[in-house]
Amino acid sequence: MSPAITYTVTAFEHWILSYLYVKIMPSFNRSVLLELPIPATMDPDQLMSCGQMMLKFVADYWKTIENRSVLPSIQPGYLRPLLPSHAPEKPEQFSQIINDLESTIMRGVTHWHSPHFYAYFPTGNSYAAVCADILSAGIACIGFSWIASPSCTELEVIVMDWLAQALDLPEFFLSTGNGTASEATLVTLLAARSKIFCQMQKKDPNITLGKLLDQLIVYCSDQAHSSVDKATLIVGCKIRKIVSDDNCVMKAAQLKQAIIEDRAKNLIPFFLVATLGTTATCAFDDIAGLGKVCQDENIWLHIDAAYAGSAFICPEYRYLFDGIEYVDSFSFNPHKWMLVNFDCSAMWVKDRTYFINAFNVDPLYLKHDYQNVAPDYRHWQIPLGRRFRSLKLWFVFRIHGISGIRKYIRKHIELAKLFINYIENDKRFEIVFPSTTLGLVCFCLKNGSNELNEKLLKSLNEDKRIYLVPSMVKGRFILRFAICSYLTEVKHVDYAWTVINEITTKLLTKT
Amino acid sequence: MSPAITYTVTAFEHWILSYLYVKIMPSFNRSVLLELPIPATMDPDQLMSCGQMMLKFVADYWKTIENRSVLPSIQPGYLRPLLPSHAPEKPEQFSQIINDLESTIMRGVTHWHSPHFYAYFPTGNSYAAVCADILSAGIACIGFSWIASPSCTELEVIVMDWLAQALDLPEFFLSTGNGTASEATLVTLLAARSKIFCQMQKKDPNITLGKLLDQLIVYCSDQAHSSVDKATLIVGCKIRKIVSDDNCVMKAAQLKQAIIEDRAKNLIPFFLVATLGTTATCAFDDIAGLGKVCQDENIWLHIDAAYAGSAFICPEYRYLFDGIEYVDSFSFNPHKWMLVNFDCSAMWVKDRTYFINAFNVDPLYLKHDYQNVAPDYRHWQIPLGRRFRSLKLWFVFRIHGISGIRKYIRKHIELAKLFINYIENDKRFEIVFPSTTLGLVCFCLKNGSNELNEKLLKSLNEDKRIYLVPSMVKGRFILRFAICSYLTEVKHVDYAWTVINEITTKLLTKT
Repeated sequence: MSPAITYTVTAFEHWILSYLYVKIMPSFNRSVLLELPIPATMDPDQLMSCGQMMLKFVADYWKTIENRSVLPSIQPGYLRPLLPSHAPEKPEQFSQIINDLESTIMRGVTHWHSPHFYAYFPTGNSYAAVCADILSAGIACIGFSWIASPSCTELEVIVMDWLAQALDLPEFFLSTGNGTASEATLVTLLAARSKIFCQMQKKDPNITLGKLLDQLIVYCSDQAHSSVDKATLIVGCKIRKIVSDDNCVMKAAQLKQAIIEDRAKNLIPFFLVATLGTTATCAFDDIAGLGKVCQDENIWLHIDAAYAGSAFICPEYRYLFDGIEYVDSFSFNPHKWMLVNFDCSAMWVKDRTYFINAFNVDPLYLKHDYQNVAPDYRHWQIPLGRRFRSLKLWFVFRIHGISGIRKYIRKHIELAKLFINYIENDKRFEIVFPSTTLGLVCFCLKNGSNELNEKLLKSLNEDKRIYLVPSMVKGRFILRFAICSYLTEVKHVDYAWTVINEITTKLLTKT
Repeated sequence: MSPAITYTVTAFEHWILSYLYVKIMPSFNRSVLLELPIPATMDPDQLMSCGQMMLKFVADYWKTIENRSVLPSIQPGYLRPLLPSHAPEKPEQFSQIINDLESTIMRGVTHWHSPHFYAYFPTGNSYAAVCADILSAGIACIGFSWIASPSCTELEVIVMDWLAQALDLPEFFLSTGNGTASEATLVTLLAARSKIFCQMQKKDPNITLGKLLDQLIVYCSDQAHSSVDKATLIVGCKIRKIVSDDNCVMKAAQLKQAIIEDRAKNLIPFFLVATLGTTATCAFDDIAGLGKVCQDENIWLHIDAAYAGSAFICPEYRYLFDGIEYVDSFSFNPHKWMLVNFDCSAMWVKDRTYFINAFNVDPLYLKHDYQNVAPDYRHWQIPLGRRFRSLKLWFVFRIHGISGIRKYIRKHIELAKLFINYIENDKRFEIVFPSTTLGLVCFCLKNGSNELNEKLLKSLNEDKRIYLVPSMVKGRFILRFAICSYLTEVKHVDYAWTVINEITTKLLTKT
């Protein structure tokens, strides 16, 4: 890189420049300006021709994804020597980029939509969502307020209502979208902090936020997602993990005990994150029981259903959110399991007052005449700007219909059952945490040590034919097998089983 | 909406269901599963045909954007009666969506890329960025760690280096991308809080975060963006606005005075946001002067150059960031003025330690073997998931080259000069805050009251031929004219001037 500052000027020179600039104005020369050409950037013809090349590339990628190694075979730093050290000074042809892609970018992609990807949780995708993204990118408005692009706000309200109906959520919920579930948790925690601060200020007008923060305590299960830790780190309050039962379910009795202990220490419990479908084992906290405690104890109940929420589009799984009437806020990620690509997280809240308290900053350049008749979603989120994300949900609902989304969810659940069947019929393995009801299967080597199970996971991922991630639950190292891909069929689960079988046999023969 | 909970079950029924589920497993029926069809969601052929329809729609939109009314003519709630009240149960044809778009969504769009849009600041777009978005959506990986998709992390590091070189930033900066400048400000403030907390804990091991928070104070100019208020609201510390000078520039002397006063009150100054290119008038704070104070006073200096940052790609504007060697973190939005569509914000920091302190939560399912050799960007941001945003910067650099981006920036600045020329040659108007150097021009009616200027702004926006937003600066209501669109040419500025001239004449004749 060249030396840090090559074009510095003194304050005096700066003043001279400013002075000259203002003085030059009256003699402004239009002809110079008329001859200033700029590159064709929002060129419709280039969009059509390059866009088609790009679509073709993605379509070919989707066709071949099954035959690619799900994990890339590269080492950290692989890309640097393959690209120039500086941005090009002069334009390149679009076809050059297309030609480069396979040998540079694609070599280092972990294929989340490969039928051999059983790691983490799924992330959604569909041609409907990609088309909606093209439209969102093409319009490229910044929907921070109603006036900044009315349809951006209004479509979001409507499709979030569609989604609430499709999931059969209670009517009292107000809706908003977010980028991710992590943001939903943080935003809700901030609203809950604002609520408890208002309440405590009424009792003691001299209380400061700092004093209160030292007393505030957040609860979640020991199985909750790391984003709850992150949110409390950001907000700066304490967090206590409630010990879940043997099936990884957080129950009311343990919560109640914690509240009694913490109140005795002069702490103020104010926020509980319950999970429907935990990351490690897809366990479901006892919302109905926890909800009653929260109601009695003035605790905000937030539900993180990031993965499992999509399943509630199927009536047969709605028993899993029994107790939802107690909930203050509910969030899940359509970008996980509802065919919408990242990012698209949905959230509903009972009372928007405290969101607006927590975030409302209103400079003149953002004010408009309709502030009280339409929601300005900038008050519901951390960023100011907002993509036209609701188009993705709208397209997916219309192209696949609720019936299509249900078929998709149900098929994944059936495929998980197929895998369970394999595991249960092999005496070397056992299913752990039998609360499994959706598309995730947790298993391990029966009577195998943590070290042995870790070796198995490592061997599987080094083999690279399939990809799964582990979890540490109740002191046990377990393997997580999540059905993730649109392409996953019976034959792929058969194949995954063959791979696991083969690698396990090798491993057990060695040891 | 239908009643809240239709599919509730008792705990006993739940137990029965779980029991049956586990027991059914051994008799698993493969043939049922083999016959379960799912909708074609990631279908390559549909992607090609529907994607082309979508591209055609966007290309046609770009061709006609100039002739559309920049502000929509609708009232809040316009969209609800135009769409069904529920999501469709059955799939619809993609062509039906395309057919609906004009009469539903497009009727309510504020056209940010219209050459008649002079409001807020620009938001970037280009066919290169849209194509990169197609690829990002097509790959649809979630790049929260290196292993989750290595090229996603590695390309980001490389193009951020390209960007730093293109702007001639100091070498000591480490890079990261964010969605928006608001997120960059919040993330940096959290890192600064983490730093000061560590420092204070060394002096007094019993200090709590709450106690410290009550003492912490953030500084910014009275011209700083509302996102600074939002970030301090979230973090929960005090904020003090330093009064800027008559040209809206924050200076060292005023900062020093504030520090003296606040230290006397037992407060702890720890974070300063300086702005290069304020939202209201595009003023530039005196970084060099402020930086020295921050260095002496142990204050983290963050630079928000959201809009103006793109201009530093042109060497002749780099004098505006004189003093950058004092900076702890620097952020700007390529999605404003560098042809990249929203969202894409760039940030550089001197020391990543405190970011990782502020955010590091590491459950087993996110750990991998390469944690110490490649950055895991999840520690640098609030969400866990991360889109493949760097593709957009990469495509734009390659397609347009640094030279193309410079031409684009320079043309906008020349167009602003043309507008200044009009204003300066009309005695009814005056340019306010003559620090104008880039693409924003602030003006108002000379000797006009705030009420009169407000009337002018309102008349202009009701007329809907052009769109601008106002600002309130130092007690004056001013009009902001920002060059925003790729399509803006001399003739559009001429036209905007004609409209302003006509509406002003009408207004002044009436009053």
